[in-house]
Amino acid sequence: MFKTIIIGAGPSGLSAGIFLARDKIPVLIIEKFAVGGNMLLTEKIENYPGFPNGITGYELAKNMEEQFLKFGGKIKEGDVNGIELKDNKKIVKIKNGEILECDVLIIATGSSRKKLGVKGEEEFTGKGVSYCAICDGPFYKEKEVAVVGGGDSALEEAIHLTKFAKTVYLIHRRDNFRAKKYLQDEVMKNEKIKILFSKTIKEIKGKETVEKIVVEDLKQNKIEELNIRGIFISVGFKPNTDFLSIDIKKDEEGFIIVNEKMETNIPGIFACGDVIKKQLYQVITACSEGIIAGYFAEKYLDSIF
Amino acid sequence: MFKTIIIGAGPSGLSAGIFLARDKIPVLIIEKFAVGGNMLLTEKIENYPGFPNGITGYELAKNMEEQFLKFGGKIKEGDVNGIELKDNKKIVKIKNGEILECDVLIIATGSSRKKLGVKGEEEFTGKGVSYCAICDGPFYKEKEVAVVGGGDSALEEAIHLTKFAKTVYLIHRRDNFRAKKYLQDEVMKNEKIKILFSKTIKEIKGKETVEKIVVEDLKQNKIEELNIRGIFISVGFKPNTDFLSIDIKKDEEGFIIVNEKMETNIPGIFACGDVIKKQLYQVITACSEGIIAGYFAEKYLDSIF
Repeated sequence: MFKTIIIGAGPSGLSAGIFLARDKIPVLIIEKFAVGGNMLLTEKIENYPGFPNGITGYELAKNMEEQFLKFGGKIKEGDVNGIELKDNKKIVKIKNGEILECDVLIIATGSSRKKLGVKGEEEFTGKGVSYCAICDGPFYKEKEVAVVGGGDSALEEAIHLTKFAKTVYLIHRRDNFRAKKYLQDEVMKNEKIKILFSKTIKEIKGKETVEKIVVEDLKQNKIEELNIRGIFISVGFKPNTDFLSIDIKKDEEGFIIVNEKMETNIPGIFACGDVIKKQLYQVITACSEGIIAGYFAEKYLDSIF
Repeated sequence: MFKTIIIGAGPSGLSAGIFLARDKIPVLIIEKFAVGGNMLLTEKIENYPGFPNGITGYELAKNMEEQFLKFGGKIKEGDVNGIELKDNKKIVKIKNGEILECDVLIIATGSSRKKLGVKGEEEFTGKGVSYCAICDGPFYKEKEVAVVGGGDSALEEAIHLTKFAKTVYLIHRRDNFRAKKYLQDEVMKNEKIKILFSKTIKEIKGKETVEKIVVEDLKQNKIEELNIRGIFISVGFKPNTDFLSIDIKKDEEGFIIVNEKMETNIPGIFACGDVIKKQLYQVITACSEGIIAGYFAEKYLDSIF
């Protein structure tokens, strides 16, 4: 019987696992898709301290996985669709019917890109609608594309896409960006980027793949169509907490609320990484939170055994 | 004129620097001793996520320094002995008389090992009294040594010293350890380690170098002498804040109090790493705090320019 289960093998889950496994605590990570989580969406990570030349998200994920496995940790594929509490035990239910039990549970399920919620978005996802410029940018060489959003990620993606695309429309519903100044400076002076302020997307149209978007000008109350082949949606993240069938405290957007020890409101359940409410969502912060969660999960185990 | 000054080139200072320099903010780190800070005291760091085989503190420090310098950051040797506020500017005074000015200041000066405060301790420091088992362990091959303390570090150091020493007395003033259980198990079953509970050091004696320690048994109210050649003191850390001539909020032990954005109570002054009050003192947590400090330092600069 495993004492500790971690849901999610992104940077925070793997880090929590590394901490616990190194301290000889039996630990199992359950991952739905691929080990690495949102790290895999990043081409090159330049501000993870310790890698002077940067490191690809894929490589960093591989390194952390190897580090975890070396200390004796185990990883299992599975889609968790329910959690239950039974006395002091935590029951983890997997979609295939399997039921696992543990003393400490660490939730590290991360977050996913928010959808726009407009007509055509679902239909054309993967056919011109993308949530990852790093992943899909190279498909749009010499094409016209749009990026929707006004934060750091949206501006970074617009800049990244100019490596491939002919024109990048950067569409934002407000009349200024909330992104960092130096990014704003960069998009302003990049001739391939056309900034469209105070505009929203009404619909995404096409036959087999995306051909145009319907855009509303919020100031002039005017509708127009833009011919594009790709639209990259970068309007924020939502935490992956749909599987949470128990009453864990969350903020209004659904991010799990933890204290400085990464404890949730339920004793023996910790959370870390992009799924929690916090100040900064980065690989390095996720790793730090994972290590902290591991440390206090171990303290918790020490206290109950 | 540099916009941002960071005091201290340990993991948190370097990380803050990496974040800012990458975003094209001019940044200067001032370091008193050696780039790397307390990382240099660690032989091998095994739980910094991303290095499957572990990495020496020295190597990790070199990597972070290189990463910082590549982005255009600057490092300068200097012993800061005063901070002043002038309007919105922060004035940094260096012992050699130099005076620097900046808009944002990040304090990342770390912490130092606490002293026992007993007779002989000062006199024999470097001559048998050590605060770093990793650094000085190899000098005590086949000798008798003592470790003072009851936390994780003390127990880890006792275990480490058994690689060299003949006998390791582990002396603790309480009758149980606060260290993690698996470490307690390891010291219990290690035949080279003799655990002395409820005992304190009264004096360290010797001629040229340490020869014996005077130990008081707190339960039996008895004094005895132990022949040893080395004593490793591991009774906690104190923050390096003596240079702070301004009124920054600290806790009762002197650790700087920051919020989740690494802001101190003074606008434009941030702190991160071992110098702050927090839950867990590790390289990875220091790096994460450094990145957060860098991020919000940049936001602060954006807001004032």
